[in-house]
Amino acid sequence: MIQTDILIIGAGPVGLFTVFEAGLMQLRCHIIDSITQAGGQLKEIYPKKPIYDIPGFPSVLAGDLIDNLEKQIEPFQPSYTLGERAETVEKLTDNTFVVTTNEGTLHKAPVVIIAGGLGSFEARKPKLDSITFFEKKGVEFMIKDPNLYLNKKIIISGGGDSALDWALYFSEKSNEKIHLVHRSDSFRAHKDSVNNIYKLQTEGKVEIHTFSEVSLLKGKERLEEIEITTKEGVKILLPTEYWFPLFGLSPKLGPLTHWGLEIKKNAIVVDNTLDYQTNIPGIFAVGDVNTYPGKLKLILCGFHEATMAVQTAYKIIYPEKKHTLKYTTVQGINGF
Amino acid sequence: MIQTDILIIGAGPVGLFTVFEAGLMQLRCHIIDSITQAGGQLKEIYPKKPIYDIPGFPSVLAGDLIDNLEKQIEPFQPSYTLGERAETVEKLTDNTFVVTTNEGTLHKAPVVIIAGGLGSFEARKPKLDSITFFEKKGVEFMIKDPNLYLNKKIIISGGGDSALDWALYFSEKSNEKIHLVHRSDSFRAHKDSVNNIYKLQTEGKVEIHTFSEVSLLKGKERLEEIEITTKEGVKILLPTEYWFPLFGLSPKLGPLTHWGLEIKKNAIVVDNTLDYQTNIPGIFAVGDVNTYPGKLKLILCGFHEATMAVQTAYKIIYPEKKHTLKYTTVQGINGF
Repeated sequence: MIQTDILIIGAGPVGLFTVFEAGLMQLRCHIIDSITQAGGQLKEIYPKKPIYDIPGFPSVLAGDLIDNLEKQIEPFQPSYTLGERAETVEKLTDNTFVVTTNEGTLHKAPVVIIAGGLGSFEARKPKLDSITFFEKKGVEFMIKDPNLYLNKKIIISGGGDSALDWALYFSEKSNEKIHLVHRSDSFRAHKDSVNNIYKLQTEGKVEIHTFSEVSLLKGKERLEEIEITTKEGVKILLPTEYWFPLFGLSPKLGPLTHWGLEIKKNAIVVDNTLDYQTNIPGIFAVGDVNTYPGKLKLILCGFHEATMAVQTAYKIIYPEKKHTLKYTTVQGINGF
Repeated sequence: MIQTDILIIGAGPVGLFTVFEAGLMQLRCHIIDSITQAGGQLKEIYPKKPIYDIPGFPSVLAGDLIDNLEKQIEPFQPSYTLGERAETVEKLTDNTFVVTTNEGTLHKAPVVIIAGGLGSFEARKPKLDSITFFEKKGVEFMIKDPNLYLNKKIIISGGGDSALDWALYFSEKSNEKIHLVHRSDSFRAHKDSVNNIYKLQTEGKVEIHTFSEVSLLKGKERLEEIEITTKEGVKILLPTEYWFPLFGLSPKLGPLTHWGLEIKKNAIVVDNTLDYQTNIPGIFAVGDVNTYPGKLKLILCGFHEATMAVQTAYKIIYPEKKHTLKYTTVQGINGF
């Protein structure tokens, strides 16, 4: 059983900054996230996209913002359960919570702060016969450990950053030629990535199939062959070991909806008059996952909400102690 | 008469960021500040101090944070009335406000956002006979234009960053030896500054008078001579043209207290359940100047408050239009 002061659900920018404000009060944090790395969608979906509305940054790449936040919270040594989804919560008689993940990992804390962003991201799955049969038997919707697929016969579908980034990654690392299948010839990805993929095609490392879609999956025990159909109806068969349909991730609140929290319009209702606490005392919700009158889904608002939540968290954890706000500017940061 | 959409009182970090969020909604801003430069106390009092609790910055110098914010709001071309203090406000029959400064400059806007920090800073003045007589006749409590004092006979009193920084500045730029008077021998200033000042003393550019205080001001029309008394009672007379007693600035809400705003504990009470509006509809207060249940005097909280205030400001200015929040990350910033 993992024990901590504050259990944070969600390792996006707001979840990470929560560690900092908690750390200033000498509270320890543990973070659960269904994605296998910290950073939420900023790191997983658009690490190279510039953001312009973080105060003090005329422009910052989403991935760099996460790197900065990780560096900022380093002194407070957060621990993580990554790649697992917070599934259930139980309130014990001593008012502490036990949160269990889909993998059965148990976490215990007197305070839970949900910084779940738009929810856990679930892959958009193409509608195709037998796709469920081949899932985990050659079909993967998210690439968690790329080393498993080096030097394998790979087909990637999609026209966004994720598809392009992985196509570039494997075509540089793998001995096998990568096939990229996209239903049009315009890619919604970073311009550099698009230029690079065409360059790698001329080098024979990638084969790009535009105006094409995967139409059939074949194999006995696991995926062995894939049929691609072009707009004109031309079909080709490709031997393959792995197919990655990377059509984006769609956010879902998921299991959190069964926690007994008040939900409105797919967001968790919180008390914005004080501390962004939910209807369950001891459980807070901060950032894009919450809602209240006038709510703006902005990262900068989440930073404020997390800071306010942590003040009440301190009172829950140390009901007798009095904490006075210390400014950081004079003394610097004393970590753990 | 200066006219704008939003009149911001206070050019500190929160006032500056208000321009950004207003600009995203195509609202124009004008800023009034009693200090002659933007940046509030971050720029005026501790530009070289690192801050550790701005989200996304493991560490940032106060002055650099201001530079970044000024760059971030550049596309929205804010205009300024600097070196003048917002003195009075009048609500016209059409619900717009006219704010007049101590110099008589008039400003008109449908919305006023007070981002006054801890108030306007007033110098802590030593109690000394005839100090009022010599004010502006050799005695200056703030150094606004240092060029006026180059190659003059200067005495600086104080043991903090401001006294040290200016002593260093003038001893490097001026032909005249600088005298630094401090009542103890421990300086509450940046370690580098203290080291440097002693180094400059060995070079004969500064003379440091520790355990000493200025005890008498002499002169006919203006300051000509100063008497310094040591702890042991030894008196010396120094010919001088300027004396800068730099004992820090003490914040005062000042004229704002007469605006009819609800004030509690030297701060303006606002509605934190929605938009940080004061008891006067159309006047908001954001950042350290306001108070509400659980208020934290943190810059990051001010950023959030300003963002929320600007949403209601938009509805006041354009009651018929509907504004939908646009994320900045895809399109970049379109300025004016």
